Formats: sequence, structure tokens, C-alpha cells
Amino acid sequence: MNIDMIRAAATRIAGHARRTPILTSPFLDEIAGRRVFVKAECLQHTGSFKFRGGRSAVSALTDNALKTGVIAFSSGNHAQGVALAARDFGAPAVIIMPDDAPAIKIENTRALGAEVVLYNRETEDRDAIGAQLAQERNLTLIKPYDQPQVIAGQGTTGLEIAEEMNALGVTKADVMVCCGGGGLTSGIALALAADAPGLRVRPAEPEEFDDVTRSLASGRIESNTRRSGSLCDAIVTQQPGDLTFPIMQKHCGPGVVVSEDECMRAVGLAFDRLRIVVEPGGAAALAAALFHADTFEGDAVIAVATGGNVDADIFAQALETLA
Amino acid sequence: MNIDMIRAAATRIAGHARRTPILTSPFLDEIAGRRVFVKAECLQHTGSFKFRGGRSAVSALTDNALKTGVIAFSSGNHAQGVALAARDFGAPAVIIMPDDAPAIKIENTRALGAEVVLYNRETEDRDAIGAQLAQERNLTLIKPYDQPQVIAGQGTTGLEIAEEMNALGVTKADVMVCCGGGGLTSGIALALAADAPGLRVRPAEPEEFDDVTRSLASGRIESNTRRSGSLCDAIVTQQPGDLTFPIMQKHCGPGVVVSEDECMRAVGLAFDRLRIVVEPGGAAALAAALFHADTFEGDAVIAVATGGNVDADIFAQALETLA
Repeated sequence: MNIDMIRAAATRIAGHARRTPILTSPFLDEIAGRRVFVKAECLQHTGSFKFRGGRSAVSALTDNALKTGVIAFSSGNHAQGVALAARDFGAPAVIIMPDDAPAIKIENTRALGAEVVLYNRETEDRDAIGAQLAQERNLTLIKPYDQPQVIAGQGTTGLEIAEEMNALGVTKADVMVCCGGGGLTSGIALALAADAPGLRVRPAEPEEFDDVTRSLASGRIESNTRRSGSLCDAIVTQQPGDLTFPIMQKHCGPGVVVSEDECMRAVGLAFDRLRIVVEPGGAAALAAALFHADTFEGDAVIAVATGGNVDADIFAQALETLA
Repeated sequence: MNIDMIRAAATRIAGHARRTPILTSPFLDEIAGRRVFVKAECLQHTGSFKFRGGRSAVSALTDNALKTGVIAFSSGNHAQGVALAARDFGAPAVIIMPDDAPAIKIENTRALGAEVVLYNRETEDRDAIGAQLAQERNLTLIKPYDQPQVIAGQGTTGLEIAEEMNALGVTKADVMVCCGGGGLTSGIALALAADAPGLRVRPAEPEEFDDVTRSLASGRIESNTRRSGSLCDAIVTQQPGDLTFPIMQKHCGPGVVVSEDECMRAVGLAFDRLRIVVEPGGAAALAAALFHADTFEGDAVIAVATGGNVDADIFAQALETLA
């Protein structure tokens, strides 16, 4: 993994992935006690940054590999990102999803032309199901985070953050990134190390799913005990990746752990003050920026709002936090 | 009013008003039967396009006028747009608001540094109050739509639409604009006539508040019977402006009238498919694009989502349309 792969991915996805805006509100600045910049990846195609990695990985495949197709494991956002990227190239896509994934994510993945195969998280082995399908049909696996071209695609988010923050003269700040397996976090960290070395990435994670925060603290890969059942499902993974963890170790500051309640309040504030739809897991970074002010220094903080695929009933609950 | 004033306004607001993204979703394309491009002005500062006109008008004032300050009448979006623009220039701002305006909008306007003067709709004459204050303090009135520098500011939205649609090769399409007094509609129409003459503006209005649609049809200024009580309150005005109407007559196609229910469904779909927060009145154009397909020709339609300042309970109602 290196910066040149991220720049090459940026060239491949240019004109396909959306350059998402960085949003601000004086009301959020007041809560955080400093300027808050929100990179709105919920406005990305398919509603999350995952399209960047999906498009990057699919666009790097050979014509033969495109013809036989791709396979991915995902509870949602990666599924849609890969499905749309594959469709854009006319490549078949098989997505293995847990049967408790949000309904909207399963539906959307199918609507984007993918074949969805559901499994039970508790009783079935998704890796075995995937391996068998991949072998039978000669499909190329697109991993959700621990794969160089996926990390490179997610890292393009960091190139954009660096460019805009440099233009604004923000040269020293923490960049909070909602973190699951670390693909986005490590990709942005690599991009910033090259293009905006005064901006430091820090992972944001929900309580009980703080594997990356604990891994960074202990210096070795730590796992979560729980594997599901979070409102922040989008960023729940068992542990950081073998590729992503060393990158995070080298470049990232300490993680910030937020509560589900803080995430829901951040979803409500993003509605009220930024007019964007963020899913609870996608609001972890904003929650850290707003409600953990004492962990930051300086007069600015950047938060990546990573996704906006949220069921209406969960969103309505988040709106109640505004009352 | 001419295109040079719009280009000059664009120069004055560059780097201050946000260049809002144009969003798309294959799911919306499917509903409309053609490509749908949504210009997301709800992501503008203060949550609506009104900041463009406010900033344009305030930035055109002399230093002396800035020093004494500005005054505006508004129950919502124009108030916040003018308040922020004035604050940016260190100019005092007085906003005359009805005392039954939503508490949150009064609070927000005050939080942006404006002095809010409340009046009673039933017993007091807001024009008299405003005139007296303006005279006593030598304040400059910033009208909500019928003022050249305000129209010029709103027209910058059209310059951006022209540029992006030209880059995409969309040279012939209708551009639906949520229409109150016609400031945004006429401004965009002037901009497109100059920079993308194949793109035709058409106003979108809610039922019972379709004064512009009827005025365009009859060839003279028509008024609404009802003056308030719409879910689409943000775009309810009594009649088109004396300045805006002739511009709309010259450049706009026929209006499209949408129901409140269609607006609420469009709010729900914008949440679900674009991950943006749009207020009911700000969704009239999208409602027209999605639910009045038979009034359009060609393979593309553009809709301006004009604002996103909506109370949580109204938004929760809109989410219920998705069920």
C-alpha cells in the first residue's frame, strides 16, 4: 500500500465517484467549541464511501475477471458499493449478506442488480458459503477493507480532505473517521500523511465494538466479544485487518469511543444543522467531534460522515433526541 | 436585471456561498422514467438558497450602508440568509418576524446575530413597524425576492446548473424550481438563457398557492386567495413580484402544480435515495419531476431542492410515506 495507489485509484474513479462536499454549521461549532468540518460521504453514490473502494477494486480487474464476476461479504454499504461498481462494468455480482441486515440495504443491493445470498450470523459460516460460490463460478472476492485496491479507493476521500483543508488553511487538526475494519481509516491516513501531514486521523468507534481503539492502545490486534446487535451496524467488525492495522498503527492517533446515544444525537444534529441523512454508525465520528471535545486540541476538527443508509424508524428515533 | 449582474454576484459570493452538489439516484430515475438531477440547495449555508440572495445584496452595499445595517421581513429562510450575510460583514441586521413563527426559527435567526423584532399578525402592521425602524436607524431593506441584487444572487444557482449540465452533455431539459415570489425562478431563468439556452425553467407550486402558474397562464399577475396554512410554507407568497414576473413570462415554461401529499412523498424519497433533508416546500420541484412525468419531454429533468429547514415532527410524517 502506498500513496501512488491512492492517486491511481483517484484517477480511475474520477467522474464516477462523487466528490462529496465538506459541510459546516456555526451551531455545531458552538457545541464542539471549535470549527467542525463534516465530509459528507453519505452523499456518495449508494449512500456511503464504500462505492469508492468498490469502484477502485472493480476498475482494477482484468476483462476476464469482470466477465466472470465478483463476490463480496457485507451487511450493507460495501454490498451496495460493489453492486453498483460491478453493474457499471457489466460484471455479475454476488453479495453474501447476514439475514439480519437492515431491510433497506438488502433491497437496494438487489435493485442494483446483484444476486444476494443471505446467511444466519449465529449458525452459518459465511466464509464457507462464499468460498464455495467463488470457486464454482470463478468469482473474484472484493473484501470490505483488507485489500489494497479497496483501501486505495477509500483513501481518495483523504485526498479530497487534504485539498480542501489546505485551501482553507487548516493545517493542523484531528480527522475523526468512523471505523470498522479500518479500510477508510487507513486509506485516509495514508493520503493525509502525504498531502496534509498536520492532519491526524483518529478512529471513532461505538462502545463494545472498540476493537481498533483497543488494538492501537495495546499495540496488537484485539477483537470484540460481541459481533452484532449495534445500532451502529455499519461499522461493526470483529477486529482490524492485517493490512489496515499496521497502517493505522503508523499514522493514527488514539481512538475515541462513543455511545450509541451520542451517535443518535449526532444523527439528529446532522439532520437539523447540516440537512444530511447520516446512519448511526456513520455519525460516530461526528459524535466524537461534538461530544468528546476534551480529547481534541486546536481550533478545528474534521469528521467523516461515512454513510446514510438508515431505516426510517431508526431515523425517526434519532429525531426524538432533538426534542 | 441582466446576466452581468448574476455573474458579478457570483464573483462576490464565491468562497462564501457553497457550491451545492447535484445529486442523482437510479431509484429516482426509475420513478420519473428519465434521469433526475437534484440541485441540493438545502445544503447551502443556513439551509436554503436564500443565503445566496442575502449575501449578494449585502455585499453590494456601500460601507456606510453596511455600518448602519439592514432590515428584512421574513418568517424563515430569508431571515436566516440575511442574518448570516450581515454577520459576515459585521453589519447590524434587524429581522421583523411574526410572533407566531416557529420558536426554533426565531432562535436560529437570533443565534446568527440578528435583532429579531416580533409583531402580531392580527393586530400590528409589519410594514409600518419596519418603515419606522428603517427610518430611525437608516437601515437598508433587503426584500425577499423583488430586488435586483437578490435575484442576481439566486441566479448564481443557475450558473452552476448550466456549468454542470453542459459538462454532462445535458443540453435540453426542463428545470423545475420551487417557486414563491419568483426570485430564484427568475434568477435561474436568466442564467440558463445565457449559459444553457436548451434548459427551460418551470415553476413548481403547491395546490391553492399556484399564483405564478396561473399568472403565467393568464399573462397577468394573479393572487392566491389563501395566504397561509400550507405545509409548503417556505414557498407561499401572495403573488409574483413586479420584477420577477416579466422575467418569468419571457423565459419560463408553464408551471406545475403539486399536492402537499406529493411534496411529502418527495421529502421521503429525498431522505431515502439522496440522503438529504428537504422541507416540504423545498421538495415541490422534485415532486413535479417524479410524479408529473407526463408533463415532461426528453430523457432528463432537473429539480432544485430549495431548502431543508423542517421541523422534526413534519419530517417524521414525511418518513411515514415510505412505509
